[in-house]
Amino acid sequence: MDYTLMQKEVQTALQDQQHPEQLFQLVQNLRPYDIAEVIKGLSKEERLELVSNLPIAIAAESLEYLEPEIQYQIIRHSKQSIASPLLNRMSSDAVVDFLLALHPLQTQRLLKLLPEDYRETINQMMSYPEETAGSLMTVDYISARAHWNGERTLQHIRKVGHEAEIISYIYVTNIRGELVGICSLKEVILASPATLLGDIVARDIISVPAEMGQEEVAAILSRYDLYALPVVDNQKRLIGIITIDDVVDVIQEEATEDFQKMGGSSPLTEPYFKTSIWDLFRKRVIWLLVLFVGGAYTANVLEQFSETLSKIVELSFFIPLLTGTGGNTASQIVTTLVRALGVGEVKFKDIFRVMRKELLTGCLLGLALGLIMYLRAMLMGVDTNIGWVVSLSILIIVLWSSFVSAILPLLLFRLKVDPAVVSNPLITTLVDGTGLIIYFTTAQMLLHI
Amino acid sequence: MDYTLMQKEVQTALQDQQHPEQLFQLVQNLRPYDIAEVIKGLSKEERLELVSNLPIAIAAESLEYLEPEIQYQIIRHSKQSIASPLLNRMSSDAVVDFLLALHPLQTQRLLKLLPEDYRETINQMMSYPEETAGSLMTVDYISARAHWNGERTLQHIRKVGHEAEIISYIYVTNIRGELVGICSLKEVILASPATLLGDIVARDIISVPAEMGQEEVAAILSRYDLYALPVVDNQKRLIGIITIDDVVDVIQEEATEDFQKMGGSSPLTEPYFKTSIWDLFRKRVIWLLVLFVGGAYTANVLEQFSETLSKIVELSFFIPLLTGTGGNTASQIVTTLVRALGVGEVKFKDIFRVMRKELLTGCLLGLALGLIMYLRAMLMGVDTNIGWVVSLSILIIVLWSSFVSAILPLLLFRLKVDPAVVSNPLITTLVDGTGLIIYFTTAQMLLHI
Repeated sequence: MDYTLMQKEVQTALQDQQHPEQLFQLVQNLRPYDIAEVIKGLSKEERLELVSNLPIAIAAESLEYLEPEIQYQIIRHSKQSIASPLLNRMSSDAVVDFLLALHPLQTQRLLKLLPEDYRETINQMMSYPEETAGSLMTVDYISARAHWNGERTLQHIRKVGHEAEIISYIYVTNIRGELVGICSLKEVILASPATLLGDIVARDIISVPAEMGQEEVAAILSRYDLYALPVVDNQKRLIGIITIDDVVDVIQEEATEDFQKMGGSSPLTEPYFKTSIWDLFRKRVIWLLVLFVGGAYTANVLEQFSETLSKIVELSFFIPLLTGTGGNTASQIVTTLVRALGVGEVKFKDIFRVMRKELLTGCLLGLALGLIMYLRAMLMGVDTNIGWVVSLSILIIVLWSSFVSAILPLLLFRLKVDPAVVSNPLITTLVDGTGLIIYFTTAQMLLHI
Repeated sequence: MDYTLMQKEVQTALQDQQHPEQLFQLVQNLRPYDIAEVIKGLSKEERLELVSNLPIAIAAESLEYLEPEIQYQIIRHSKQSIASPLLNRMSSDAVVDFLLALHPLQTQRLLKLLPEDYRETINQMMSYPEETAGSLMTVDYISARAHWNGERTLQHIRKVGHEAEIISYIYVTNIRGELVGICSLKEVILASPATLLGDIVARDIISVPAEMGQEEVAAILSRYDLYALPVVDNQKRLIGIITIDDVVDVIQEEATEDFQKMGGSSPLTEPYFKTSIWDLFRKRVIWLLVLFVGGAYTANVLEQFSETLSKIVELSFFIPLLTGTGGNTASQIVTTLVRALGVGEVKFKDIFRVMRKELLTGCLLGLALGLIMYLRAMLMGVDTNIGWVVSLSILIIVLWSSFVSAILPLLLFRLKVDPAVVSNPLITTLVDGTGLIIYFTTAQMLLHI
């Protein structure tokens, strides 16, 4: 979709005030996501004008796709007769995310736009820590009673359904608000209108506590192929539901974070272009310094062997290639294992299987690379003995790197440290120095120096 | 859930044949996913016995969570009166995945269990290439006609709904089978029973062609927060739908693949423990060799500067630290950008913004690291001039690494090459050699050698 073109058309329609219908025709075929994209390119006045001309339900849904600054600008400067229903019709999880991104004073001002009981609910939802089930959930779900029949349930859905985020599941609660079962709308429709919910309800329900971490929530939802998951408090009372579309966002976010960690940087909290240069610097310099300090011992190792080096200067030619190859082997293993741990494919109890697998693969890789390394050294015309040294060194280095990178992520996982801490740069730095020690020790032994 | 315990209980119940009810009670509270986990731990005979005692619908759904070998074992050795309905009740996309994993002869044998017209549909679905919309879709959806009213639509859902994978959307087609609109079940229920579908249908439908890649499908579904997406052929006829739960799997898979690529390995096609050592070797050795050949020039660079090196052997002490830091900076940038390109946050047209951002950040990082590097060199007691050389070198290396890693992923993206090809090991190898050139040129210039 060409948003720029659409923005121009909307702007023309707004200037040409005689045809408000023209404006409506323009956007009526757009989805809320696309309307949000159009709004982004408009001026403040145009935004307010456009929003005030849209049906509230559509305006509210479009607003959910905008950034907090624009959301605030629109709601703050609209007439109260528009601002209040706008905020009310946004889904509750979107309102919470929005309000949490504002200054507390702004939040307080906007909360006044909501009816009192809803305001309390939102306040409660805002109190759950970030990245937990509580912070992901919405209160816009359908609940019903076990003694209702299908007919009455459908009537209830007709009454409150337009506010629900998902109507595929009906949550059956008792008088104390405890979740006693879940019915899918499919079951209600497939059953006869007189069937009681209590008779078709599934009682083996999966629910999660509000404190559960969002990664675990995502894992449960995707494992059981659910579209929504109920959230309960510690008295088993239903307090909200988490829908799969929010979980998709979580899965993407978590993968992005793990990516950035594996690249050796603290994860960015904002999208790339929203992150300032200063923030980028801070997120990266910490790890670069840690790695620098960690890697600084390579200089000592080389100083230690400076006599060997000055005797046979050719040995230094192969330093980057040897340490590089060790680092590359380690990167391959570490990324595979960190991801496998992240999605639950590998557990700590598998440590010996993993070690065996990686050491055997390392043997094959080490032999192949050792052969190539020998040929490479011969091609440079160095002494045959040096050829043997580099060749044997690379085999040992690959095996050593395989060993370290096989156990380190699993050990961290066991210690409840995020295994992504062993980023590619970190493991590379770790095996650099040890690789040098292996290399020069091998050289001293084989060349008798 | 303790699957081992549950397996033991099921085994006991199976041996104690006098109480088949006991067996049913055991599993009736389990979800299909959990039943599948229990089945995995049973012997062949126990599996067949258990499946034959389950309601067909539950058995079929449980089967979907099992690996093809076990699925085949159960269906092949069950009586035809069980095997046939079992295969029929599995969702069509699961059947396709299953059949595609078998030997063609086995596939042919099983296809005979299906009624003829369904067999043709499945054959057609099997013909779509892997990782496309066609290979993800299911034909178990609800379609209706525009002139039906809400009442009739609900009746229709009651009739065919138990076979549908999702009933949240009703796909309105015309007599030629072309998709003319989509109604959500919510709208049908909220409207009065007499309302015609044609009056509430959304005609601005988003549909995808069967050939579209699965990554793009996932992006569309998650951008618009949809639960399902219709797939059409080139005559706009509806041929299937893709549900969000399958897309969640795609997103996870694609992230895993990108992870492995960024670690410098060809992506594994199987889960880690299912991949043989030989396969691991093959996937990894290709890249290790490419990197080896790419990195081999570092030896030539050092040979070129061997005179400088033998004059001032202290210069070699800092080689791993300098190349390492250059590589680390590059890794940070490359992983951030590859991911940002992958999720569509950064596009090729942003290349100058990215370059500017990374060079400015690189300046800050280079200055900070240059200072630390100087201190480190002084701490080792080397000559002040060498301190200046390493300090200035690290600044230039960081800037150069930032430049290369800012443009390379974007250029590849532009050339329609997967930017994840610039893995951490690759970019590290690339900047290693150039880092050495920078280092020794700086040394020659500052030290006049």
